[in-house]
Amino acid sequence: MITLTEVGPRDGLQNEKGEVPTAAKLAFIDALVDAGVTRLEAGSFVSPKWVPAMADTPEIFQKLQRKAGVKYIALVPNSKGMQAALGNGVTDIAVFTAASETFNKKNINATIEESLQNIEAIVAIAKQNRMWVRGYVSTCFGCPYEGKVDPNLVKRVAARLLNLGVDELSIGDTIGVATPTQVEDVVGVLLKECRAEKIALHFHDTRGTALANVLRGIELGIAKFDSSAGGLGGCPYAPGASGNLATEDLLYMLNGMGLKTGVDLEKIVQASGTISAALGRALPSRYLQAHLAKCAPKT
Amino acid sequence: MITLTEVGPRDGLQNEKGEVPTAAKLAFIDALVDAGVTRLEAGSFVSPKWVPAMADTPEIFQKLQRKAGVKYIALVPNSKGMQAALGNGVTDIAVFTAASETFNKKNINATIEESLQNIEAIVAIAKQNRMWVRGYVSTCFGCPYEGKVDPNLVKRVAARLLNLGVDELSIGDTIGVATPTQVEDVVGVLLKECRAEKIALHFHDTRGTALANVLRGIELGIAKFDSSAGGLGGCPYAPGASGNLATEDLLYMLNGMGLKTGVDLEKIVQASGTISAALGRALPSRYLQAHLAKCAPKT
Repeated sequence: MITLTEVGPRDGLQNEKGEVPTAAKLAFIDALVDAGVTRLEAGSFVSPKWVPAMADTPEIFQKLQRKAGVKYIALVPNSKGMQAALGNGVTDIAVFTAASETFNKKNINATIEESLQNIEAIVAIAKQNRMWVRGYVSTCFGCPYEGKVDPNLVKRVAARLLNLGVDELSIGDTIGVATPTQVEDVVGVLLKECRAEKIALHFHDTRGTALANVLRGIELGIAKFDSSAGGLGGCPYAPGASGNLATEDLLYMLNGMGLKTGVDLEKIVQASGTISAALGRALPSRYLQAHLAKCAPKT
Repeated sequence: MITLTEVGPRDGLQNEKGEVPTAAKLAFIDALVDAGVTRLEAGSFVSPKWVPAMADTPEIFQKLQRKAGVKYIALVPNSKGMQAALGNGVTDIAVFTAASETFNKKNINATIEESLQNIEAIVAIAKQNRMWVRGYVSTCFGCPYEGKVDPNLVKRVAARLLNLGVDELSIGDTIGVATPTQVEDVVGVLLKECRAEKIALHFHDTRGTALANVLRGIELGIAKFDSSAGGLGGCPYAPGASGNLATEDLLYMLNGMGLKTGVDLEKIVQASGTISAALGRALPSRYLQAHLAKCAPKT
């Protein structure tokens, strides 16, 4: 069994320039859950000044039709965001930091140590409220400023997060540079620190390597992966280029390998269709494009 | 060491509707060789009635500036094509058949047995002329008409081709449906028939799985892969959808894994740039798109 975490509604949409109607986001979330998704990022309590596309997160959480057993995750950057999350009925949160000092500084204007202290405060409140906490570690395979990232830096941040009480780590290839050998290096180091169950891998398909990296991850015993319906959330610098691994592509490979996920590929295609229509543009998923173009029947 | 066979100038361009100037094809071929490519498909002696985009193949072979040690491969469908190949200085050829009876029938209007008899005649002439012969087997992982293809059918055709004296097999996922488990099934069966050196794998990225399939191929001991600069040769039914695995994406992964190819990624990007300009459109390679969009520096 492979567990998918769907990041489309948050990671996928957070860089959208045009406004996406809240109703369209809610319909997208419902369609994803209807497809069998049991964990999804529904929004972010980051300041709307920084991420205007997520300004309707409180409304999203107020209006959500919750299905039992599904984690509707909110990104929480600080104690203020945490209060907002609590006030809007959030039960599952994600906190974030990075393995690269320069990236963390430029991304959230804090050292890694400062962000960990911040996370400590958030997790303390979360645990008092019996919340489930996911910890994102960005730039685990490469940093736009520092280049290659030492797996031991990833391990150090991962160990700190686990010590703080984070329930699961999402190890991110933020700029989509990882290759399978590197996956082996990073996961190998992490598995000395914790069990595979604690680790999810979050790959970007920017250079086409995401599924090869997933495959290597599976070979190493990892069974949790992040993906985004339609591949929503491309490289912010280029409309045509890819960012997040597409849920469709991931499911196509896993289905072909006989690995169960509980998620229905054709229903994900439908969910992508709803958000694609709301955005008024095609999405980059290879499977989705082939499917829509009817590129020869699949076997 | 991994050996790449570049299929862009033939497989990549053969479905082009608009005319690509012969000079642009020659410049493309030169740029590929300059990048370190040592095997490439330069053209096809299939009837121009069937494949008008390859009508200038005789001219291509007459004007080629051959570099020592490079195989300039021509696709040869029959004895007539073979005579044309011989008359134009071709020294390396490719013959083709399929693992699926229905596909072969619809593609070249012959049973697999008929096409093998045809290949027998071609190979006999080739061997008299000390030519190197590559044998393509299409639809080894899935057929648009029959669905999944039995690996034993692939093995049977592969064995026949090797018995006829074909020097190398290119095992093709013509419609881009393969997943890593299937690669294991097909390659596993083939490795009972011949050494890994006899096998090249030819994946299409239609559903995003090509690099994962390459990775599984490498794990099984295969060291020869086909790819197309820029990902030229998309799904013929859709301009945006992907077909051939892009050489850039393949090189990016192999480089990251420390596997040598002798081919320079940045020079392949330049070669793709020349043909992209001649075609007047962007090419689907993920790496290429990220590179052109400057999606964060690579590590």
